[in-house]
Amino acid sequence: MNRTIKICYIGGGSKLWARIFMADLAVAEGMSGEIALYDIDREAAERNAKIGARINENPKTNSVFEYKVYDRLEEALSGATFVLLSILPGTFKEMRSDVHTPEKYGIYQSVGDTAGPGGILRAMRTVPLYEEFAEKIKKICPKAWVVNFTNPMSICVKTLYDVFPEIKAFGCCHEVFHAQELLTVMLKELRGISVDRSQIYTDASGVNHFTWITEAKYQDMDLLALVPEFAAKFGEEGYFERAGEDRFAFKTDPFAYGNKMKFDLFERYGALAAAGDRHIAEFLPNNWYLKDPETVKEWQFGLTSVDWREQDQEKKIADTIEMAEGRKEFPVEKSEEEAVDMLKALLGFGTVVTNVNMPNQGQMPQMPAGSIVETNCVFSNDCVRPVVSKPLPAGVSNLVHRCCVNIDNAYEGIRERNLDKVYQAFVNQPLCNCLTIKESKELFREMCLNTRKYLEPYFDLDAYFV
Amino acid sequence: MNRTIKICYIGGGSKLWARIFMADLAVAEGMSGEIALYDIDREAAERNAKIGARINENPKTNSVFEYKVYDRLEEALSGATFVLLSILPGTFKEMRSDVHTPEKYGIYQSVGDTAGPGGILRAMRTVPLYEEFAEKIKKICPKAWVVNFTNPMSICVKTLYDVFPEIKAFGCCHEVFHAQELLTVMLKELRGISVDRSQIYTDASGVNHFTWITEAKYQDMDLLALVPEFAAKFGEEGYFERAGEDRFAFKTDPFAYGNKMKFDLFERYGALAAAGDRHIAEFLPNNWYLKDPETVKEWQFGLTSVDWREQDQEKKIADTIEMAEGRKEFPVEKSEEEAVDMLKALLGFGTVVTNVNMPNQGQMPQMPAGSIVETNCVFSNDCVRPVVSKPLPAGVSNLVHRCCVNIDNAYEGIRERNLDKVYQAFVNQPLCNCLTIKESKELFREMCLNTRKYLEPYFDLDAYFV
Amino acid sequence: MNRTIKICYIGGGSKLWARIFMADLAVAEGMSGEIALYDIDREAAERNAKIGARINENPKTNSVFEYKVYDRLEEALSGATFVLLSILPGTFKEMRSDVHTPEKYGIYQSVGDTAGPGGILRAMRTVPLYEEFAEKIKKICPKAWVVNFTNPMSICVKTLYDVFPEIKAFGCCHEVFHAQELLTVMLKELRGISVDRSQIYTDASGVNHFTWITEAKYQDMDLLALVPEFAAKFGEEGYFERAGEDRFAFKTDPFAYGNKMKFDLFERYGALAAAGDRHIAEFLPNNWYLKDPETVKEWQFGLTSVDWREQDQEKKIADTIEMAEGRKEFPVEKSEEEAVDMLKALLGFGTVVTNVNMPNQGQMPQMPAGSIVETNCVFSNDCVRPVVSKPLPAGVSNLVHRCCVNIDNAYEGIRERNLDKVYQAFVNQPLCNCLTIKESKELFREMCLNTRKYLEPYFDLDAYFV
Amino acid sequence: MNRTIKICYIGGGSKLWARIFMADLAVAEGMSGEIALYDIDREAAERNAKIGARINENPKTNSVFEYKVYDRLEEALSGATFVLLSILPGTFKEMRSDVHTPEKYGIYQSVGDTAGPGGILRAMRTVPLYEEFAEKIKKICPKAWVVNFTNPMSICVKTLYDVFPEIKAFGCCHEVFHAQELLTVMLKELRGISVDRSQIYTDASGVNHFTWITEAKYQDMDLLALVPEFAAKFGEEGYFERAGEDRFAFKTDPFAYGNKMKFDLFERYGALAAAGDRHIAEFLPNNWYLKDPETVKEWQFGLTSVDWREQDQEKKIADTIEMAEGRKEFPVEKSEEEAVDMLKALLGFGTVVTNVNMPNQGQMPQMPAGSIVETNCVFSNDCVRPVVSKPLPAGVSNLVHRCCVNIDNAYEGIRERNLDKVYQAFVNQPLCNCLTIKESKELFREMCLNTRKYLEPYFDLDAYFV
Repeated sequence: MNRTIKICYIGGGSKLWARIFMADLAVAEGMSGEIALYDIDREAAERNAKIGARINENPKTNSVFEYKVYDRLEEALSGATFVLLSILPGTFKEMRSDVHTPEKYGIYQSVGDTAGPGGILRAMRTVPLYEEFAEKIKKICPKAWVVNFTNPMSICVKTLYDVFPEIKAFGCCHEVFHAQELLTVMLKELRGISVDRSQIYTDASGVNHFTWITEAKYQDMDLLALVPEFAAKFGEEGYFERAGEDRFAFKTDPFAYGNKMKFDLFERYGALAAAGDRHIAEFLPNNWYLKDPETVKEWQFGLTSVDWREQDQEKKIADTIEMAEGRKEFPVEKSEEEAVDMLKALLGFGTVVTNVNMPNQGQMPQMPAGSIVETNCVFSNDCVRPVVSKPLPAGVSNLVHRCCVNIDNAYEGIRERNLDKVYQAFVNQPLCNCLTIKESKELFREMCLNTRKYLEPYFDLDAYFV
Repeated sequence: MNRTIKICYIGGGSKLWARIFMADLAVAEGMSGEIALYDIDREAAERNAKIGARINENPKTNSVFEYKVYDRLEEALSGATFVLLSILPGTFKEMRSDVHTPEKYGIYQSVGDTAGPGGILRAMRTVPLYEEFAEKIKKICPKAWVVNFTNPMSICVKTLYDVFPEIKAFGCCHEVFHAQELLTVMLKELRGISVDRSQIYTDASGVNHFTWITEAKYQDMDLLALVPEFAAKFGEEGYFERAGEDRFAFKTDPFAYGNKMKFDLFERYGALAAAGDRHIAEFLPNNWYLKDPETVKEWQFGLTSVDWREQDQEKKIADTIEMAEGRKEFPVEKSEEEAVDMLKALLGFGTVVTNVNMPNQGQMPQMPAGSIVETNCVFSNDCVRPVVSKPLPAGVSNLVHRCCVNIDNAYEGIRERNLDKVYQAFVNQPLCNCLTIKESKELFREMCLNTRKYLEPYFDLDAYFV
Repeated sequence: MNRTIKICYIGGGSKLWARIFMADLAVAEGMSGEIALYDIDREAAERNAKIGARINENPKTNSVFEYKVYDRLEEALSGATFVLLSILPGTFKEMRSDVHTPEKYGIYQSVGDTAGPGGILRAMRTVPLYEEFAEKIKKICPKAWVVNFTNPMSICVKTLYDVFPEIKAFGCCHEVFHAQELLTVMLKELRGISVDRSQIYTDASGVNHFTWITEAKYQDMDLLALVPEFAAKFGEEGYFERAGEDRFAFKTDPFAYGNKMKFDLFERYGALAAAGDRHIAEFLPNNWYLKDPETVKEWQFGLTSVDWREQDQEKKIADTIEMAEGRKEFPVEKSEEEAVDMLKALLGFGTVVTNVNMPNQGQMPQMPAGSIVETNCVFSNDCVRPVVSKPLPAGVSNLVHRCCVNIDNAYEGIRERNLDKVYQAFVNQPLCNCLTIKESKELFREMCLNTRKYLEPYFDLDAYFV
Repeated sequence: MNRTIKICYIGGGSKLWARIFMADLAVAEGMSGEIALYDIDREAAERNAKIGARINENPKTNSVFEYKVYDRLEEALSGATFVLLSILPGTFKEMRSDVHTPEKYGIYQSVGDTAGPGGILRAMRTVPLYEEFAEKIKKICPKAWVVNFTNPMSICVKTLYDVFPEIKAFGCCHEVFHAQELLTVMLKELRGISVDRSQIYTDASGVNHFTWITEAKYQDMDLLALVPEFAAKFGEEGYFERAGEDRFAFKTDPFAYGNKMKFDLFERYGALAAAGDRHIAEFLPNNWYLKDPETVKEWQFGLTSVDWREQDQEKKIADTIEMAEGRKEFPVEKSEEEAVDMLKALLGFGTVVTNVNMPNQGQMPQMPAGSIVETNCVFSNDCVRPVVSKPLPAGVSNLVHRCCVNIDNAYEGIRERNLDKVYQAFVNQPLCNCLTIKESKELFREMCLNTRKYLEPYFDLDAYFV
């Protein structure tokens, strides 16, 4: 079987994700066609096209695609079988405001792109762009499957479905995979059984970056029952579970963590938080894990500064250039990501069950209908159907429900360009609960004005912040 | 029409409520029978029985009742048409711990009997007693109407229905009446129209002490539309609305308030908080209105200290004694309370529509089924049926939903005598969000141990707090 | 207190309802203003205006209104405080097809204006007119309260809310009042207690003409508990309950009935059907009570033929003329109807609780959200809020749920002018279950073509019935 | 990987199903252990044990199991990994009453074991047995997976979950597979594409034997879009889709059908009925497809008489004896059934997605929570999680909802041994809608008394049918 497809990649100048995806696509079998790269940074897209050409020459490549760079989104979308969305709304300047301005008010954010004040501001910049994407997809390629990778995930997917309810879209994130890896590590460390995460079944549900594993089984062994034992043995020192990484990587790498927070939450709630600790912390009261840099360190994770991100980005660009120019080899091999597996299942190559973000239509009866939730879904022959998740423990359900409504309210405010409503959602972020009303208004104002370049086309800031 | 009834008053030694109720009963027409007073403080009940006897001699009295004091609850309940519940779980010593211990951790409570750490501890002492009340009512007088006045209101009513699902019970609170008075004050001050609060219609809903008015009409005039105008005119200085009270009473009386908080919330959410500001504040992040005593003052309300309560209590007892002994006259006249009106409607004297607390069976579709919610209800001929309330604004709904789940979770933990679950609800109180995890555990421990005398019969504190 | 209002009466040429309403209005106190009569039969409206003028001269009249006849609906609506809707869609010719054509296929209908094949066809003629009314109300008097009296009730109210979701509308029907009268008759006959139906409380719920009383109390007496005793004593012979009417009126009057059906349903389901038996029968399988004229007779009710209606109509017109011309006296006194009481409550004269038809927003959690259901509602100061009804017994709930969905599906089909969907709802009427598929298609075709004059402006009959 | 398991087969004397299952098990890889056969007909179980021994000797056998026959159910259940339930409640005598007695009243049933009067009576005999099974499973092997094959499927699964809510159970039926085959036949006949049904994705949902396919895709081809074309080409003559069977088998085989009914329903409702036509017909008004034997023939299906079943049974027994004694070869090869695939997925051998019956927990938000619905489910590592199905078209949803409530009501009546409630569900069966009330009572009485031997231990028939 061979399927000829066109993939439109919005944000096709991506420094890292794009080439991981391209490699996964190359090693997969049974496809050919075109990858249409679109990016406001055309140069970056060109580099990825060049890497694509090199991939095609690699002997490990099974599926050959033509890589083309487009100037006009409409053309890139035309005829698309799939549309991938992976963009950065604004620049590091705006990200710096999102992440670091709240620190002046005592709010520390480990990521700053999903929940908390940073997440709200980022959503304000992103939703208007997604409204436009959705409109164009509706017009140009309404039958295409749309895969979102951009954060804040939930509100991006919400926008797509709100603007174009018949859209075929889902949001894809790898955070849960790491929690699955942690479970296999437990099985290995405590019972001496080595398995791949694909061999276990987990029931993860919640909202993106705040998902919870409520059931995990290998054969008839209950893996969640291992958590207390593992925590007792390794919790104090910390254990970063990522394959091929140092167990203590969290001491130096701001993307790593020691899972101490997960063990604390498991002890208190009886479910395993299923995203990296740096994400989970942002959905909880700030005094729990993000009170100050010392607290963060004590809980074995890190604050990802924008300085660090900028340096990291430069390295990635340098890498990309070297690869594009052939001075550095680009390894064509299957990654841990699953996007290509999902695409293949949609094309008719078998069935895949994995967790993605979709509007709630019954998969989480505890959550509001229509909220974007992350649960297992079945992928097969042009269909994605959500799997009903096991109910969350009441305590967790309460936290997640609040988060669903916060997201829905923030979205409503942004869609209506109503800053009053956006502020309501802003102030109701758990990370903002340490503010007085006066402080919350000041912080909101400051963050809006810092990023006014990207907000002004949509919001009447001058009228609001007289 | 005359109905012969028996009213069993549990907590019949009440220092103030009992005699207000007795006076309302006396001036109403068409009833006679017995008031069975039961109290663990028998002396107090005797005093009220004596006042009852004096009421019967008062020329304004229309309905004469025999007042009897009982030693055994079973006998007081036997044959009851109505059961009133109005008790204080524990003593001022426990109340002192509920209200003031959290201050050491930066948590100030204006009341401390409903939400927040104080509310949880008080619930832990109250629920086991209510389980027993419910069992006895089920056995002895299952057809009686049960009217609860005790706080924490929601969890008391929850217990009654959970233990005895066929119970005919509701919870009665006067807080919303004051917000209705405030609306009539606005109509008078801004439009020169004098009306009684019975002439307007309000749609109030939420959970007890955290209710919100979403619609208020006098004829076709929208009273909520007056709030901004009234706030602009009187908000800065404050305006305490209670009839016959000084507008600035909040400067001295800890039960009064200037409504500044209500105006702030109205501006932000578009609905009018319908309980006294001192109650509302306790359901919100502590840095908003309860950050510290200065903040409280700035928002024109007060912290009711237990010292103050003790002194007030002594005065009330002294008053009661004087009245019981006939040295002081007790005014027999209709109060602002509505309990007697509800009882009369249940007996078949017309129809009454007013707000009470009942399990959610559709009246608040945004809230979980079975949570105890406060909404308007229709009272008539042995029936109480809830009225579907207008949906809360999304931002308010989110706050109230969280509160419903907190109460349900706290109840579940207490019913199961499971301190882990109780702690989960404790830590999820908005007022507790300023604590670190370590502090929250310490505070919970301290408050439990302070009140161990009342908790130990039910909870295994020693095993939990090793 | 005096309120000056304008009431726009669409269908103001009504032969009976209009003048009952006008009399109720006249004897009520505290109002004045204008009654704007609009009717496609202007002559009929003129007659009612004349009767209005005579009412104003009657000494019993408290509230005087100016009666005006309008040619243009827009002018009649302009400035309206209330809009009453009471129309006949089509003529007796169409009604004859609705009621009698199905008889050829073995389907007998006792009324033929709500459920069954007649109800569907009548809905097809009515909905397009109501779409227009809703549009005009939205444009001209969006704040007016709209009171519907037209059948099919549910689908008329559905149309109003669907076209103009912010409309303030409800549907008003007196059928439940008669069931309440029956309950007072039981109390009198079996216990010797005479009460007025306003003194009892009933919880009636369902869809219009298929409502059920699930609770009925006088003081603490359970009136439903009397049904079996009453049925045993009077059921065999029959007992028509209407005040001032012969108990055996059903033997001659097609509007009367002996309640035998109600007793049969009560025995089987444990709830009291709350509309006249002639309405209830049409929501049930045709072989139960409407198998053939003999069965109908056996169950003590009648088939209202259109011949009878035509004769009755002529008598009413003659009456109206005599009254208009002053040759016959028109009695100005309060009727059993409650519409004027509701209007007064909306104007701010006290609170009324009675049953009307509104979109389901929680009052019947067993039924689909948004379906038009009939339950008690609270009327007060410009507000109508539904009361949550007691759950229907499972067997009844199943019947009512099916009926809700049938109505919603029929509406959807008519709104979309999609005859396939309308036919689906047609064939799913319980009364149509005796048809083969072929017969159901033929009957639908025949009934549509019979009434094509009124359907063709909206439906493409020729394309469908090739 | 090898898993050692014990399968307890209740009804292990099954004449056909048992040996199909045994062969599927034998050819599968990676398992061993014991098959515990339990049957009230011990002789039949012994025969299957002998066939089992012969299977073990077959060279195609990969998984060898010890086949043991048990006299006591408790011992058969002890230590079970899986429990299979496949019983016949009563004998052919009772089945004869179920299927043929209603014919006297004009009700023809094509199967008579699920919906309709036969289904209700069969449920009355089955539920009490299942209550006992559930109790024993709860006590002896609460962690075992329980797979039900017995009809009426929904009410059997309902009983298991109601008696033992923590049970791990699902109900397994092959009817949907045939509809999937029909879709592959369409693809072959109309587009020339040959695929296996495992290569397409279908979304089937509803209640067992009344399921509907709302989406069917091969790659991005919409298979439902082929139905009208296929119906136009083959519908008139009929087309039985079963692989290896004559297209016109329905002319002689009462288990076959020509799909004309499916095409009629698709035209009217837009979804594809997903069980055999003989099952579907029983959920619809009897005049549609089951009016009389001529109508049945016209719609290209058959009435399975109990005479036929008896003869067929005798043949199967003769076959079984020959196989058990080695005189006839038993083919050891994979069948079309999927039960063994599900079991393997539960044991940890990969993931399977297929349709089974489970309590509704969100997979069909249109249906009542807790009703037993059939939808796709994900099977993996000791977990079965339902997949949220695409909403049914409104017209179909109405039919299925009614059926869900009928089943729930019937179950409630049987559980409470309340014949009034059972009768309510009986009379509300669509197939019973042709009866008058008198007839429905007579038929119910007659069917109960015919099968009194099996009902009397549970129901007080004498008191009810005085």
